[in-house]
Amino acid sequence: MSAKPPMDNPELTIIGRIRTPWTKVENCPRNAMETDVDCRVEVDEPYRDGLKSLETCTHAILLYWLDRAPRDVITLTPPNDTVTHGVFALRAPGRPNPIGIAVVDIVQVEPDGLVVRHVDCFDGTPLIDIKPYFASVDSKAGAHVGWHEQRAKPLPSRG
Amino acid sequence: MSAKPPMDNPELTIIGRIRTPWTKVENCPRNAMETDVDCRVEVDEPYRDGLKSLETCTHAILLYWLDRAPRDVITLTPPNDTVTHGVFALRAPGRPNPIGIAVVDIVQVEPDGLVVRHVDCFDGTPLIDIKPYFASVDSKAGAHVGWHEQRAKPLPSRG
Repeated sequence: MSAKPPMDNPELTIIGRIRTPWTKVENCPRNAMETDVDCRVEVDEPYRDGLKSLETCTHAILLYWLDRAPRDVITLTPPNDTVTHGVFALRAPGRPNPIGIAVVDIVQVEPDGLVVRHVDCFDGTPLIDIKPYFASVDSKAGAHVGWHEQRAKPLPSRG
Repeated sequence: MSAKPPMDNPELTIIGRIRTPWTKVENCPRNAMETDVDCRVEVDEPYRDGLKSLETCTHAILLYWLDRAPRDVITLTPPNDTVTHGVFALRAPGRPNPIGIAVVDIVQVEPDGLVVRHVDCFDGTPLIDIKPYFASVDSKAGAHVGWHEQRAKPLPSRG
């Protein structure tokens, strides 16, 4: 590991909130494609001019702060698996920096936010960024997550 | 806008660094698909167990802190366009929370990090998260960014 310059921990700014029907783990979708309910992304006043031209986009990437998630998770056995995986091979909310991402369909852009589909976070989740989705760099249709395709069966041990 | 509970600004934890050949804007690729150079993602010691099972994945999403980017950008005219767009319709680094994301090919997973392709950030960029890429939720091959497809020509004015 090479020497690192000293750096303070960066501080995030909450720029809005995501409004969804889900307030408890039990009724939250397990992933974003399990729901196509319209959800509203509220953008706070100082940031609303940042929405200009988003109405020309079909999809966006939302980044949000999973404020109920633990930050001390490094490995985890998912509910439907018998094998422990590292947090960087998982999309579970608990992780050192609990930032959630969702690729959403843009239904409508409004002056103070947008209506989107395929969000699976809790109601009131703090918003930290919105990015346009570029198929040229973001779409990898052939991607595989090996452990997930084999889950509930033991994976071969690491070499 | 509904009432929001008070909340302190969340603080990020730097979990590693991204090593690339690029130190200046002039030689940085303009987007991640412009380069297929092998780059190294260094993960700091406390987080290395989090890499387990990532070797079964073909692609990952890196989240990193763009520590040289301004945070006061709300609208911007891109270099190759004549129209001003909102920052949430742009992938430019300057934004309220300058978090970069890159969908990368995983070349190799090592005990203290990984080797990846299709990263376009500066050498030494602070790493904040690694997530496995699931084609089922993350791949949208038909996505469009309308303003980008029409850039260098004026877009119709907003209604």
